[in-house]
Amino acid sequence: MAYQLLTRLGLHKYIWSSNLLSQTESSNLTEPHLEILSIGVVYPVGEIHPEDFVAFAKRHYGDSSAIRTTLKLNDASGILVRSSVFPLHEEEMNASEAPSIGRISRLFKEHGVKLAVEACKKAINEWGGSIEDITHLVAVTCTDSSNPGYHEIVARELKLKSDVDKVLLHGVGCSGGLAALRTAANVLQGAAYRSKKGRALVIATEINTSMARCALDQCKEEHRPNIAAVLFSDCASVLVLSNGVQRQEFEQPIYRILNWKQKTIPNTESEIQFNVHANGWKNVLTKDIPYIAANSVGPLFGELVRETPLDLGGQLPHPTNFDWALHPGGLAIIDGTKQALGLSSVHLAASYEVYRNYGNSSSATVISVMDRLRRIPGGKDYVVACAFGPGVSVEMALMVRSR
Amino acid sequence: MAYQLLTRLGLHKYIWSSNLLSQTESSNLTEPHLEILSIGVVYPVGEIHPEDFVAFAKRHYGDSSAIRTTLKLNDASGILVRSSVFPLHEEEMNASEAPSIGRISRLFKEHGVKLAVEACKKAINEWGGSIEDITHLVAVTCTDSSNPGYHEIVARELKLKSDVDKVLLHGVGCSGGLAALRTAANVLQGAAYRSKKGRALVIATEINTSMARCALDQCKEEHRPNIAAVLFSDCASVLVLSNGVQRQEFEQPIYRILNWKQKTIPNTESEIQFNVHANGWKNVLTKDIPYIAANSVGPLFGELVRETPLDLGGQLPHPTNFDWALHPGGLAIIDGTKQALGLSSVHLAASYEVYRNYGNSSSATVISVMDRLRRIPGGKDYVVACAFGPGVSVEMALMVRSR
Repeated sequence: MAYQLLTRLGLHKYIWSSNLLSQTESSNLTEPHLEILSIGVVYPVGEIHPEDFVAFAKRHYGDSSAIRTTLKLNDASGILVRSSVFPLHEEEMNASEAPSIGRISRLFKEHGVKLAVEACKKAINEWGGSIEDITHLVAVTCTDSSNPGYHEIVARELKLKSDVDKVLLHGVGCSGGLAALRTAANVLQGAAYRSKKGRALVIATEINTSMARCALDQCKEEHRPNIAAVLFSDCASVLVLSNGVQRQEFEQPIYRILNWKQKTIPNTESEIQFNVHANGWKNVLTKDIPYIAANSVGPLFGELVRETPLDLGGQLPHPTNFDWALHPGGLAIIDGTKQALGLSSVHLAASYEVYRNYGNSSSATVISVMDRLRRIPGGKDYVVACAFGPGVSVEMALMVRSR
Repeated sequence: MAYQLLTRLGLHKYIWSSNLLSQTESSNLTEPHLEILSIGVVYPVGEIHPEDFVAFAKRHYGDSSAIRTTLKLNDASGILVRSSVFPLHEEEMNASEAPSIGRISRLFKEHGVKLAVEACKKAINEWGGSIEDITHLVAVTCTDSSNPGYHEIVARELKLKSDVDKVLLHGVGCSGGLAALRTAANVLQGAAYRSKKGRALVIATEINTSMARCALDQCKEEHRPNIAAVLFSDCASVLVLSNGVQRQEFEQPIYRILNWKQKTIPNTESEIQFNVHANGWKNVLTKDIPYIAANSVGPLFGELVRETPLDLGGQLPHPTNFDWALHPGGLAIIDGTKQALGLSSVHLAASYEVYRNYGNSSSATVISVMDRLRRIPGGKDYVVACAFGPGVSVEMALMVRSR
């Protein structure tokens, strides 16, 4: 009650720091706060190595200037291996034509739902709570588009209660993981407003590799290289978010979410697109994206830190005093953001690691980076999660680690 | 503050009645409550009459048992006219093949976005507020699937602030209008929790008629009648939802939202589907839907009224003491629900009227019914909005009219 009262009086800023939060909480455990209680990430066991991709592309698309340049991007991607439900030698990947969007949807329901359910079970298991205590589900994907959405199938397979409040987001591409976290944060604060317990499964699932052929078709048709063909991978990432109402003793936060924001950068609508097509989604990813992305992070970060009371122990709210869970959209995006904000590779260690070892799994990636980051010893107290998507939209969440 | 305090103490139930709400509000105008401040509905001017459809179907698909039965459903639909961006004689509808999902998306971006923007302007105009005061946007569609979603294009055309909190729902079919309202209600209560002003545009847009050919193709391929071919129409419906924080004097609610819920009916996953396909979405709509829908309404209504304090002036919380904004999925659904709940045609007048004069515009329909209902003089104080979608999912919102 005390915190709520202070919020109403506009005085909460004076207690909203990582040290004082714990004091407030210990004096009133039922007080609502947004906490990430667990994270479950599942990558499929299939692997696509850059060298496998060369043979695959040549087998189906022969030699052309566009293919040659795409293979140069493949060499320079910085990705060691991409996770995939379909290794490139499998029949599914080597049919006479690229699969239709209907087939892609059936593959998603088979492989994507399986990954999502597995990641949910992992997150629920780490959280330690009961399936009956899940009150909300916020899911996202940009690689399926059926009704019912896959969130209904996941809910059924997990045997969630029939009246769990469910949401499936679409149209947000790679920024979807943080769009789902933002929506879950908003919705769970809505539950807190009514003094209702909120425990949400936030689920991001992408099966991008079923569109490997579609991406190479596009390369051939447009006589242009297509970086999408060499970046994207498959993953399901899940986190359990709590609004802190009726907190149980076993519920120990990994991160507390302090603030979040989405911003659409003006005049960038033609820079990132995944346009629906009979064979899935066709990409538009321009060369300007790394520049736009890197230059949008600083201003949004500035707005968020100005709006959020932080206890940096006398340090300035400079980007270097935070750890970064940056969506690794591509090497140029991570490197560009590092340079624009004056960061070192250490600040972005988790982003580099996830990118190198798994590739870009669109919406599912940023939660995987948050998972990697928590396992790196040391680091800063405060963490910024950031992802880019079509719009161009930039999503950001400001969090504090629980030590 | 008083209301918030009572909520925390669990005493809000004793003041949560239509009469007492006004008293509470008049004594404290800044107190947050969820209010629908305006509604804007735009149907395209194109018309599809059942008799036009006969000629159209015969022209392209000749004569077969499946087509004949589909045309019988067309005769018996009870729809006088369906609104459409494409009259059936237009070139777009009479190509050699059904349009691809890519073409359907481009048509959506042209016609759907235009309808949505127009409906937004209508709603904003009735509300009387400024575009700068829009803080949230919750959109839905099941007839487009691109990234960025159409919500980003609508936001740009309306010149919304770049940091408006945006959400696009998918995978919820015809229940999408209420899924969007539920999500907006949750999210705006989240804003209220942080004492933040919340004014959301809730937007449902569907261009179903671009899939008229796809539905008839399905009829031919599956050798089965397809009721979807004769039911669906186009529409954009928008409402402005407020969380009541910093209420302005000009902001007069049409409805106050008291409670809301979504429920997935067990073992019904194969009854309603819109499966993505190279030519749009293929329907599964079984004969059992009217039965499932009609029988799911009573129990969910029962749960909602038990959980919501109501002032019925001594009357029982029986369905007949409420007006109904029921999604008119088809004639059998409205008639079946009427019978199951013991309602008269008067209780469902708005649903019948919208269905008869415009057809089923999937997610956009229920908001249109709410709009029609407010224009019918008299009626009950309390209103139930209800819609069905794939899952089978039932969405319900309990509202009180402002007189």
